[in-house]
Amino acid sequence: MLVSRLPDGTVRTDEQIRRERAIDSWALALLRCVRGDELPVPAAVVFPASTGEVATVLAWASETSTAVIPRGAGSGVCGGAQAETRSVVLDLSRMNQVTDIDLVSQVADVQAGVRGDQLEQALAEHGLTAGLYPQSIAISTVGGWIAASSAGQASTGFGAIEDVLLGLTAVLPQGEILRCKPVPRSAAGPDLRRLLVGSEGTLAVVTEATLACRARPAGWDWQAFAFGEFKALADGLRQAVRAETGAAVIRGYDETDAQLSFGALGHPGGCVGMLGFPAGGPGLAARKQAAIETLKHAGASGELGSRYGEHWWDHRNDAVDTYARIMGPDRAFGAGVIVDTFEVAGLWSAVPQLYESIREALAAHAQAVGCHLSHLYPSGSSLYFTFGIIGADDRDAEARYLAAWDQAVQSCAAVGGTITHHHGVGRLKAGYLAGELGETGVDVLTRIKAALDPAGIMNPRVLLP
Amino acid sequence: MLVSRLPDGTVRTDEQIRRERAIDSWALALLRCVRGDELPVPAAVVFPASTGEVATVLAWASETSTAVIPRGAGSGVCGGAQAETRSVVLDLSRMNQVTDIDLVSQVADVQAGVRGDQLEQALAEHGLTAGLYPQSIAISTVGGWIAASSAGQASTGFGAIEDVLLGLTAVLPQGEILRCKPVPRSAAGPDLRRLLVGSEGTLAVVTEATLACRARPAGWDWQAFAFGEFKALADGLRQAVRAETGAAVIRGYDETDAQLSFGALGHPGGCVGMLGFPAGGPGLAARKQAAIETLKHAGASGELGSRYGEHWWDHRNDAVDTYARIMGPDRAFGAGVIVDTFEVAGLWSAVPQLYESIREALAAHAQAVGCHLSHLYPSGSSLYFTFGIIGADDRDAEARYLAAWDQAVQSCAAVGGTITHHHGVGRLKAGYLAGELGETGVDVLTRIKAALDPAGIMNPRVLLP
Repeated sequence: MLVSRLPDGTVRTDEQIRRERAIDSWALALLRCVRGDELPVPAAVVFPASTGEVATVLAWASETSTAVIPRGAGSGVCGGAQAETRSVVLDLSRMNQVTDIDLVSQVADVQAGVRGDQLEQALAEHGLTAGLYPQSIAISTVGGWIAASSAGQASTGFGAIEDVLLGLTAVLPQGEILRCKPVPRSAAGPDLRRLLVGSEGTLAVVTEATLACRARPAGWDWQAFAFGEFKALADGLRQAVRAETGAAVIRGYDETDAQLSFGALGHPGGCVGMLGFPAGGPGLAARKQAAIETLKHAGASGELGSRYGEHWWDHRNDAVDTYARIMGPDRAFGAGVIVDTFEVAGLWSAVPQLYESIREALAAHAQAVGCHLSHLYPSGSSLYFTFGIIGADDRDAEARYLAAWDQAVQSCAAVGGTITHHHGVGRLKAGYLAGELGETGVDVLTRIKAALDPAGIMNPRVLLP
Repeated sequence: MLVSRLPDGTVRTDEQIRRERAIDSWALALLRCVRGDELPVPAAVVFPASTGEVATVLAWASETSTAVIPRGAGSGVCGGAQAETRSVVLDLSRMNQVTDIDLVSQVADVQAGVRGDQLEQALAEHGLTAGLYPQSIAISTVGGWIAASSAGQASTGFGAIEDVLLGLTAVLPQGEILRCKPVPRSAAGPDLRRLLVGSEGTLAVVTEATLACRARPAGWDWQAFAFGEFKALADGLRQAVRAETGAAVIRGYDETDAQLSFGALGHPGGCVGMLGFPAGGPGLAARKQAAIETLKHAGASGELGSRYGEHWWDHRNDAVDTYARIMGPDRAFGAGVIVDTFEVAGLWSAVPQLYESIREALAAHAQAVGCHLSHLYPSGSSLYFTFGIIGADDRDAEARYLAAWDQAVQSCAAVGGTITHHHGVGRLKAGYLAGELGETGVDVLTRIKAALDPAGIMNPRVLLP
């Protein structure tokens, strides 16, 4: 019995606790839940307080062939944390401590269950930040960021999770503890830290991590620009991201997304490009000027000043609440309505095609499709599509939803994009993994999975088809 | 017979060709070679011209349980490309084309056997650079960089190999072809590209890659500073690397290394910190001024102007020739002399201890030990030790060499450093891998290796103990 191997209160079988952790924030699961479908509920929820207790759980699960669903804060939108009937949910929320901050190295040791806002609060006391600002920051955990390969809104300047993940502790499926010591870089073999980034709980449970931090910006300096067409916007931002201006946030909104995001400011229409500079860095005035000149030269039709950026910064995470209102039990817009997002990435030469063909694919099934460039690189960009489906009823909405995803994913693959930039694969996209990685790529992952998880207990039906 | 499956001239068994590819540039192998030891020579050297031919070789090798030693240009210094008696060396030198440059995305498709200088020449025609400048650039290949987890001298600003590796094609041991499409980032599962970085030919043969490029700097702007003590130097550069100045090269020399590197300039003694800025970026004057103020405030005892940096840039790869003169058949300093380098990395809080304890460990066996900080990060730094051993004869030198390595590696591990920042593990450090990754880490790699290479043909005795 697992319960006898762990401290009292660690294993919970109360129905409410089990039901609350049966799904994550995947739109389709939320829809099914609120319309009253009977969804699989786990047999138990375990709340470990230490790496050792996680090891106890996994060793027991391997012995008994019990499926284990690791869970951070449940903000995933692809069904990466969805229970099975006889499974155990491993809820990391009690492991929420920032255990050490090394001020000389500017690195923080954290437990995997610490939420992003808790992490930032602890770091702010020392004038530091991890620089990872996903929209979900207040409802997601560091362990979830690692598992789902998260990237925050300032990733252009501050990097994504893999760029700041210096060390980690993880428990392998049979209970062995893997410790990767924190170093800025190592050439000692394939990077085992990176093997777990994006592994979505299918290979191991990350329990502790060491993150590189940086000085917390005193503030932000924003510039926004109007563009007539999406293509000109993309061209301009491509040049801006290469101009060594030190902009840590770069975003580009198509007309629909600009209206959605800046309608409250009386946005007159058209596309919007936006740059955010950490305040106070050396040469900021000259760097900003270079950005302005770059964008004007690339065809920006006007300067929009700082208020677009300031508005975005203040409201950047509101969408989380909006999503919950639409998809949660309250159903602000009634039944049969689904909103979801699809975040792809590709080389700059593919960006125009990705934009056109995915928008078209989604629009064939959805009533509203907006897009913004959310994470920019010298070589390419992510494109973040938001789409809303209004079905005749929930069944109709589900059918349209699945058709929209299918067509959008195929369109993305056809022009060389990746079907996820930072949300992960989960259950939603597992069936498309061969299109993404090739049969050989899936085979490599499958063989690695079998080698590390011979009992096949880790998060079944997630990531791998 | 392999020869019948490949075009004429692809499989070579001439003794000279086999002997020339029996070892790489590992100091101990060179010593053994020039003193006349009988070293294992491969049964054949295969020169594939395509990914398909590599697949043919590996499928045959798996069927026949023949060891395969993938080889770039043989510049590795850890014995990562050393033949075994019945092995086949897979020499990628015929696959040396830059096959495409996408000017919109600024990415280059290359074959793995292209040398660094060939790559840079092709990119320079388009005003681009990959930004990877290892000292070995003229005698190493892109495939070797991936296999050994290479980092160039401008890595602080331009990143290391994993930061620019967007796509790759690799052949798995049984001949399957893995294609990871080039994208700036993906969250679709663990990064299979990253699994092969640092794999040292033990998991697959990388045959093609897509690299992110950037505008080629018009020139460099150098600043150097005198420091009395190594500790003050490290403190100063730690602050400089965090100051957002855009310095792409940062280096810090201890007194011995400064004398070795800048003696020709009449260097008066003491430590040297050096920063290199790509010329012409926005705000350069203000960024340089910020760097100067940061270093002065941190205790720099004087400004050394631009000539240290200019001298270093012009002569930065001379050490490759010096090494060949000392360790090659000419033996410039006679028999019984070994020079080698040990490049570790650690968090900033560990840097002073790494410096003291490794220097002490090496000095117990070597006559000269110099060190410089070569690749700097906000969280830590690499320390690059150069040491020279003068033995009574070659046997004595070998014994001292092995003792020096043993003690230095243990000293590194004891204070939390990694035993390689960018040279890799090879045969030299394979026995120390458990100390580096833990028994569990080695077990994970061993299981992955067995899953992908069930016949165990790939580069035996390298990386894994």
